[in-house]
Amino acid sequence: MILAKVVGTVVSTQKDPKLAGLKLMLLQTLDMNMKLTGNYVVAADSVGAGHDEVVCAAAGSSARLTDNTDGLPVDLAIIAIVDSLEVDGKYIYQKSEEPAAAGV
Amino acid sequence: MILAKVVGTVVSTQKDPKLAGLKLMLLQTLDMNMKLTGNYVVAADSVGAGHDEVVCAAAGSSARLTDNTDGLPVDLAIIAIVDSLEVDGKYIYQKSEEPAAAGV
Amino acid sequence: MILAKVVGTVVSTQKDPKLAGLKLMLLQTLDMNMKLTGNYVVAADSVGAGHDEVVCAAAGSSARLTDNTDGLPVDLAIIAIVDSLEVDGKYIYQKSEEPAAAGV
Amino acid sequence: MILAKVVGTVVSTQKDPKLAGLKLMLLQTLDMNMKLTGNYVVAADSVGAGHDEVVCAAAGSSARLTDNTDGLPVDLAIIAIVDSLEVDGKYIYQKSEEPAAAGV
Amino acid sequence: MILAKVVGTVVSTQKDPKLAGLKLMLLQTLDMNMKLTGNYVVAADSVGAGHDEVVCAAAGSSARLTDNTDGLPVDLAIIAIVDSLEVDGKYIYQKSEEPAAAGV
Repeated sequence: MILAKVVGTVVSTQKDPKLAGLKLMLLQTLDMNMKLTGNYVVAADSVGAGHDEVVCAAAGSSARLTDNTDGLPVDLAIIAIVDSLEVDGKYIYQKSEEPAAAGV
Repeated sequence: MILAKVVGTVVSTQKDPKLAGLKLMLLQTLDMNMKLTGNYVVAADSVGAGHDEVVCAAAGSSARLTDNTDGLPVDLAIIAIVDSLEVDGKYIYQKSEEPAAAGV
Repeated sequence: MILAKVVGTVVSTQKDPKLAGLKLMLLQTLDMNMKLTGNYVVAADSVGAGHDEVVCAAAGSSARLTDNTDGLPVDLAIIAIVDSLEVDGKYIYQKSEEPAAAGV
Repeated sequence: MILAKVVGTVVSTQKDPKLAGLKLMLLQTLDMNMKLTGNYVVAADSVGAGHDEVVCAAAGSSARLTDNTDGLPVDLAIIAIVDSLEVDGKYIYQKSEEPAAAGV
Repeated sequence: MILAKVVGTVVSTQKDPKLAGLKLMLLQTLDMNMKLTGNYVVAADSVGAGHDEVVCAAAGSSARLTDNTDGLPVDLAIIAIVDSLEVDGKYIYQKSEEPAAAGV
């Protein structure tokens, strides 16, 4: 799975009918120093992720194994909101206690 | 899913028989600044996308889960035409009201 | 799908038994200017592609959905020989009328 | 499969319900000289891997074929802890006899 | 499929039970000039490949379609040992007649 930050949303009216009601989020992947990197990727949300949250997303056929995405033509799904990341005994990321959406 | 712009079409007469009638589009992926990047990729169209439109495309086995691509040997399908992209509360892309095909 | 040119062939006698009779082609991907790029990839041929032809190839499980590749351990299959590629109303590639194999 | 080192863990409370109890590890891939490279990837653990261990991880739908990951929305799973890697008759890596977790 | 050279082996005792008896090989991909490139990838052997041999390997779910890998959590399998590679009518690689293992 990739680590990424939720940075935005995708709005679409003309789309595959099965996608109706599915939330599509813009993600940016994070590098080793927790800095944003790369380009945008679009992921289906299955856990209620909000702006600025660090998430874990699964790609490929595994993206269709959440309750929200079963049988849908999506290849990336947010499967977890990250509380903390620990590397060599140190926290390199901890989620802020403040509501994530408030900072956006 | 990737964000990309529809930039052209692929014409082929000698192809897998199952692909008869399927529209194959040339896409270029978009970077964080909504500039075209990378090389061409070819996607099956399942939503009636037109030239110059920004679309969202699903790869892998998920590309076969649209009405148009069920059981076909395709690994990328346009699943949504993007109306707008919002990042940190600002629109970084909004679809023009003019018909997309007119500008081509 | 990727756009690539057929540049050669792979000969193998010691291989998975299911691959007997399958033609394995060497492909090189094409960049935006239709120049060869990257390294070789190997694709199963399912449409009778010849040397120097520009083809469209599908990856992953979709590569097994052609008549020639059903159930085979292959992850890339040529699904179409490209007649022409049109970008922004101009042809960036048109297949020569001469037999493709003659130029090799 | 990729070769990677286990460098940390991911903690998440808000996640897909099927992931309850699954251990998510932070991995960094290894280059030819066994140096850490690239960014973090997140893998499900199915073999009891510990910090600092070199592991082999399978991606895609294959990541769901371990006892721990059957049917789960995960796209990378640790399938083996590496004892040694031999290249051209020389060991380029041998696991230390000391307990792996002790050095973290 | 990728073209790669078998450069080594992976030894692991603590692994997914289904992998018992499966040979895991270290591969390095080959560039257009048949030089080793990139990092190591690990592949299941299904054709009896030996050190220094040039092989063709299939990724993803297709890696599980050989006799040796059915149902196993592996994402790359050697499906053919390459005898020769021909590009534009010239051989860019021909397997030596000497036993491959002898040179290691």
